[in-house]
Amino acid sequence: MKPSAACQTMRDRVPLVHCITNYVAMNIAANATLAAGASPAMLHAPEEVADFTPLAGVLTINIGTLSPQWVTGMLAAAAAAKSHGVPWVLDPVAHFITPYRANATQDLLAHKPDIIRGNASEIIALSGQAASGKGADSGDDVAQAQDVAIRMASQRNCVVAVTGPVDFVTDGTRKVTVHGGSDLMPKVTAMGCSLTAVIGAYAAVAPAFDATVAALSHFAVAGARAGADCPGPGQFQVRFLDQLHALQPADLDAARLTWL
Amino acid sequence: MKPSAACQTMRDRVPLVHCITNYVAMNIAANATLAAGASPAMLHAPEEVADFTPLAGVLTINIGTLSPQWVTGMLAAAAAAKSHGVPWVLDPVAHFITPYRANATQDLLAHKPDIIRGNASEIIALSGQAASGKGADSGDDVAQAQDVAIRMASQRNCVVAVTGPVDFVTDGTRKVTVHGGSDLMPKVTAMGCSLTAVIGAYAAVAPAFDATVAALSHFAVAGARAGADCPGPGQFQVRFLDQLHALQPADLDAARLTWL
Amino acid sequence: MKPSAACQTMRDRVPLVHCITNYVAMNIAANATLAAGASPAMLHAPEEVADFTPLAGVLTINIGTLSPQWVTGMLAAAAAAKSHGVPWVLDPVAHFITPYRANATQDLLAHKPDIIRGNASEIIALSGQAASGKGADSGDDVAQAQDVAIRMASQRNCVVAVTGPVDFVTDGTRKVTVHGGSDLMPKVTAMGCSLTAVIGAYAAVAPAFDATVAALSHFAVAGARAGADCPGPGQFQVRFLDQLHALQPADLDAARLTWL
Repeated sequence: MKPSAACQTMRDRVPLVHCITNYVAMNIAANATLAAGASPAMLHAPEEVADFTPLAGVLTINIGTLSPQWVTGMLAAAAAAKSHGVPWVLDPVAHFITPYRANATQDLLAHKPDIIRGNASEIIALSGQAASGKGADSGDDVAQAQDVAIRMASQRNCVVAVTGPVDFVTDGTRKVTVHGGSDLMPKVTAMGCSLTAVIGAYAAVAPAFDATVAALSHFAVAGARAGADCPGPGQFQVRFLDQLHALQPADLDAARLTWL
Repeated sequence: MKPSAACQTMRDRVPLVHCITNYVAMNIAANATLAAGASPAMLHAPEEVADFTPLAGVLTINIGTLSPQWVTGMLAAAAAAKSHGVPWVLDPVAHFITPYRANATQDLLAHKPDIIRGNASEIIALSGQAASGKGADSGDDVAQAQDVAIRMASQRNCVVAVTGPVDFVTDGTRKVTVHGGSDLMPKVTAMGCSLTAVIGAYAAVAPAFDATVAALSHFAVAGARAGADCPGPGQFQVRFLDQLHALQPADLDAARLTWL
Repeated sequence: MKPSAACQTMRDRVPLVHCITNYVAMNIAANATLAAGASPAMLHAPEEVADFTPLAGVLTINIGTLSPQWVTGMLAAAAAAKSHGVPWVLDPVAHFITPYRANATQDLLAHKPDIIRGNASEIIALSGQAASGKGADSGDDVAQAQDVAIRMASQRNCVVAVTGPVDFVTDGTRKVTVHGGSDLMPKVTAMGCSLTAVIGAYAAVAPAFDATVAALSHFAVAGARAGADCPGPGQFQVRFLDQLHALQPADLDAARLTWL
């Protein structure tokens, strides 16, 4: 399914995206999901997630600001997603910087996410190799993470997206890079977390690989347009939401994809 | 009290608005309350709310991102509001989508809110009827919820506001619709949650019905002005805060009210 | 170290700033820190902060939206900062409005912050005197808090910053006021919380007093530029982030400092 077709389908269906994300990202991730064309729902309590996840078209989990009750809710939601055939996306933010975060990530991986999105350091570290990230920022290049991502996708039977200046997506067999975006994107917090939510929006209506490529294309084109002659990161965030909303499905095919 | 008079009084007094709201809404609800002319205070812990609510001019509770400690805090704050004569506003976000959320809402209703604000699906479902909302978005029209709202207002002795493309406010006897706003409002997250906080700002200085009509007028006029020739939801949010702040009290009377 | 030199050093090193802040501020504080030139990391759980704080260049703690698990995490992080020589900054938001908040603040002070930043009411109340703040807003003038701040800095062997229309910084010996900013700053929520994070960014690379003066200069100049011909608080927030990012180190020396 081409990105344009995925976008048209997503906007026609307005899928309900169950987002469990971090406190920093919640507002911008919800706004990005709305602007892209889907309906975000943020709820996290262990007391209700298992009732809600099956009603959603997709589940996305981002571990940015963990605490025990949230981890319990994430695991319950992931389990509910698996048992009800709801696809789910994992965003293991800075999972390697503390043992607590590393353990929570392993517990989540046991619920077999359909898509894993991270920066290069996060994906490299997931494979057990040493990464050089600092906090939530990557210290490694996307290209360095490609081989790791391909093996991970094959072994875990999922799609892996490594995002950065150039993005890389693989399901272990297919491999594609997505070009676009803006130098201002790393200067706005939670852009990656927002992307994870939008990948979810697409994964509710399209196969995991196609959905990921479509979401990355949507961000790449919107980011490039928002970044043109942009005075800084404040204005970029505003224009980026406008572009996510203004892009028409056919515009997504303007993202430059390189098949490897 | 006319909306213009309520606005003038609110800005003169700068009431302290105790907001217990969801993680998605906190920043924008605080900014909307500040821009409108009041002073928001966000705190939620059971350990301190009962000490703080009596110091505030009003309490607003929004259940968007519930968890047990938050529910405990909300109930303690609502009880403190009632026992100290502080008016309070309930925003039962998507209360019907899980049993946990439904039960929390019933517990909150026992503390007799002075104002209930919701979208059509939320208000219909509060009455026990089947609603067709999806997540936080309404699947029903405001007009369909009017009769339910009138009965609810009479039975619960409160003001009920049903918000959407056209808003409806009733205290069981008086009934008015408020026209205005922008098609972009549903494309920005937490606009309803922010409205709840601003209803609170007005309810701190005016009777519940007048306060609700004034707050809806403030949003309707600011929304219409912000939405004129607006490129998208990112820019809308920026302009909307500017308009909430720039509007003069007399401007609120430009909102078209239709008495039924 | 002049503000310009501190800024150049901060941008060269891109320090990792461990921020434990409130739900309202998290997004804007992270964006302000990124725009200024550092790398923010938001994590708060007692299960991981002691592993993470030693990896950061600085720790900042803001008590805006307290709850018991957060207080436990804050205390663990502050203890880790002290034992590993990581400087830390305390922002005791509205600490005097409830006993719970007051007690948490005393517990945090026992870990000897290197810098304390507050508005006039917060600093006056920290000394045990009566303050007239309302919620998070100051009811006192910065000038009224200067003597208190000087004594506090001497007794606690730390830097104290009192911020408002004109800021005041002292280490007990040196005393300086910083002029600039915009009347719109108090109309945007969490500007003070964001400043605390940016003070942290500077304190990771410069002595506490110089760092505080540099961060206040950065905010003063960016605020003045953002506020020029600004239509309202929505646009101000956008422009302010752009200016934090656009300012060059030498621009910081444009802030008017008055040594007392």
